[in-house]
Order: sequence, then structure tokens, then C-alpha cells
Amino acid sequence: MASAHTDRFFESELHLLRDRILVMAGQVEHMIRDAVRALTERDAELARRTIAADPKVNRAEVDIDELCIQILARRQPVASDLRFVTLSLKMVTDLERIGDVAVNLCERAISLADEPAVRSTDDLAAMAEIVRGMVRDAIDAFISSDPARARQVLDRDDEVDELYHQLFRALLTEMRNDPDAIERGIALQSAAKYLERIGDHATNLAEHVLYLVEGQDMRHRGKLA
Amino acid sequence: MASAHTDRFFESELHLLRDRILVMAGQVEHMIRDAVRALTERDAELARRTIAADPKVNRAEVDIDELCIQILARRQPVASDLRFVTLSLKMVTDLERIGDVAVNLCERAISLADEPAVRSTDDLAAMAEIVRGMVRDAIDAFISSDPARARQVLDRDDEVDELYHQLFRALLTEMRNDPDAIERGIALQSAAKYLERIGDHATNLAEHVLYLVEGQDMRHRGKLA
Repeated sequence: MASAHTDRFFESELHLLRDRILVMAGQVEHMIRDAVRALTERDAELARRTIAADPKVNRAEVDIDELCIQILARRQPVASDLRFVTLSLKMVTDLERIGDVAVNLCERAISLADEPAVRSTDDLAAMAEIVRGMVRDAIDAFISSDPARARQVLDRDDEVDELYHQLFRALLTEMRNDPDAIERGIALQSAAKYLERIGDHATNLAEHVLYLVEGQDMRHRGKLA
Repeated sequence: MASAHTDRFFESELHLLRDRILVMAGQVEHMIRDAVRALTERDAELARRTIAADPKVNRAEVDIDELCIQILARRQPVASDLRFVTLSLKMVTDLERIGDVAVNLCERAISLADEPAVRSTDDLAAMAEIVRGMVRDAIDAFISSDPARARQVLDRDDEVDELYHQLFRALLTEMRNDPDAIERGIALQSAAKYLERIGDHATNLAEHVLYLVEGQDMRHRGKLA
């Protein structure tokens, strides 16, 4: 019976780990949504509130790291459980960095709040919708061990790149026609770049999931020596 | 004697892990140096060679991850050895991402190679010198378990930010005066942003080292809930 008990405790620790990652992912997803809303609706107050939420995400990473280390020390997991714990360590790094990028977006939102509206924010909103979906789907794929869903995340990265280039060309035209639009244009281009970076992090998350589920290393597809 | 043998093998595995991280860090440092040289000397050929070096860095991450997982499975380390292995998993992620950013820099270098020279590349070279030093010092701090050196890395991040803003203001003036300079200006601003990002990764590396050496979590200083 002692061993069955131990197994049950171990199982519950792994569940706790999964739940904490889920909660952290939810916080990060909210941050992305609010950051982009602050940017497109020029709402500096929302941007400040979103920045104030980042310490919770930072704390989540630290706590989850500690939980992983405790599980490794006390349970000495092997095989798929070991991979799950080690990948958790890597996944929370990406989630935490997404929170940082959301903070960068909020800083842009604050500096743009007093500038005149520009039409390019529609493209930004579209990009944001995609990258937020990518983060959510990567986490869903992780929770439900669903490789097909993880693969969809990888496919969508090209869409994000395409939207970025479309937005960039539009901004360039605006800036060429009006030197006063240059500073604002660069701020919007930076915001788009930040969204692209969130897409990259979501891609990393999805690659981790595929590695976990299929034991197949999808990282650096075709880019390994 | 069996136990002494086991300890010795374990020790040598930890040394191997440390050596592999060192080699990977050296590759990444070369990539930064060559990427910036390609950019400032408008050498598209060097940029292409540097991009071709990235798969080695990707492979190093995958191999080091596997080594960490093997050490965890077979040796079941505890205490500081366990922290060393789990932090290695996180550190190689940052190193690998620095390689990706160097590739982004090379892509900029290729697109700028045929453009007329601009004086702002001096500031870029200065920024590059600092961030490359930060990566090197973070890794030296890791190898020699030297918290003072790790702290110096954290201090230098402000210098990088200052140089970035200086460069940005100079580029903005150029772009306002000459609409034909806008596209090139944005490419240079992106390059500077990439260097800033390498500085962020170096900061992450240094924070990991402080955590390892002092058990003190320096991540998110003052930014924890």
C-alpha cells in the first residue's frame, strides 16, 4: 500500500504542476489581450494595469521552477514523467517571456495613447488575434497531449509573418508621405514586431509539446547540424 | 569502491555538461561577432556564412538537453547538482535564442549590404561590443561560479539601453531629413533592437548564475508578486 500511496502523491504533484502551468498560461493570455486592446483603443490606463499584472507571471515562473526541482529531488521521475517535468521548466520560460513582451507592448500603448489614431491598428489587432490563439492552442495541446493541435500552431506562424510584412509596407508608405508620422510609424512597427515575437514563443511551446507527446524533436526543423 | 567509482563517473558527466555549454557559448559569441561585422562592413558573404553556423548551435541545445535528462534519470542528483542540471536546461535555451537573434542580424546585414554606408553603424558596433562582453562574462561567471562577475552583467544592461536610445534619436533625425533613408533607418533600428535583445538574454544568463551560486533568485528583481 505504501507504494500505491506514493504513486498517488506523485500523480497529484504532476497534476498540480500541470494546473499551475495552465493558470500561468491564462494570465499570460489575458496580458496579451489587454496589451493589444490598450494599444488599439489608446487606453493608457489599461496599459498600466496590464503592466501591474506582470509580477504575478514572474512569481508563477519562480514557483513552478521550484515545484519542478522538488519533484525531481523527491520523486526522481523517469521516462515520460521526467520529460514532462524538464519540459515544464522550459515552457514556463517561454510563458514568462511572453509576459515581458506584453509589457513592452503596453509601454508602446502608453507612448501612442496621445498620438492621432492610425488605420494600421486593424492589422495589429488581426495579428494579435492570431498569436493569442497560438499561445492558447499550444497550451491546450500540452494539456490534452494533442500533437495535431500543436502542429496547427506551427503552421500559423507563416500567417503572422505575412501580416507583419503587410503592415510594415503600409507603415512605410505612410512615413514616406508624412515625416511627422515617422516616430509613430516606428512605434507601431515595433508593436507588430513584438506580436511576431509572441508568435515565436508560441511556436517554441508547440515544439516542446510535440517533443513531449511524440518523443520527436520538432525544434529547429531542418536546421540541425 | 563502487560508490567512489559512481561518484567519479557522475563528476565527469557534470564536467562534460559544463564543457558542452562552454563550447556552445563560444559558438554563439562568434556568431554575434560575425553578425555585427557583417552588418558594419556590409559583408553579405560573411552574413551568409554566419547563418550557416546556426544549425550547430541548435544541435548543441538538443544534445545538452538530452545529456541533462540522462543525468537526471541515471544519477538522480540532489541539492546543488540538481540545481546545476536544471539551470543548464534553461541556460541553453537562452544561448540558442541568442543564435537565432544573430541570424536575424545577418538577415538585416544582407538586406543592407547594397545600401549606402551610414555613420550610425559606429553606435551599433559599440552596442555589439557591450552585449558580446555580457554574454562572455555571464558564461565565465557560470564556469567560475563568480557572483560578482554575474552582477556586472546586470549592471551593464542600462548602458545598452542608453546606447539604443542614442542611436534611435540619431536615426530619427536622419529619416526626418531624408525620406529615402526611412527604410534603411528602420533596418538599422531593428538591428539595434536585436542587440538589445541579446543583452536581455545575457541578463537572463547572469540571473541564472546568481541563483545557482547564491541560491538567491535575482530574476525579476522587485518585479515579483
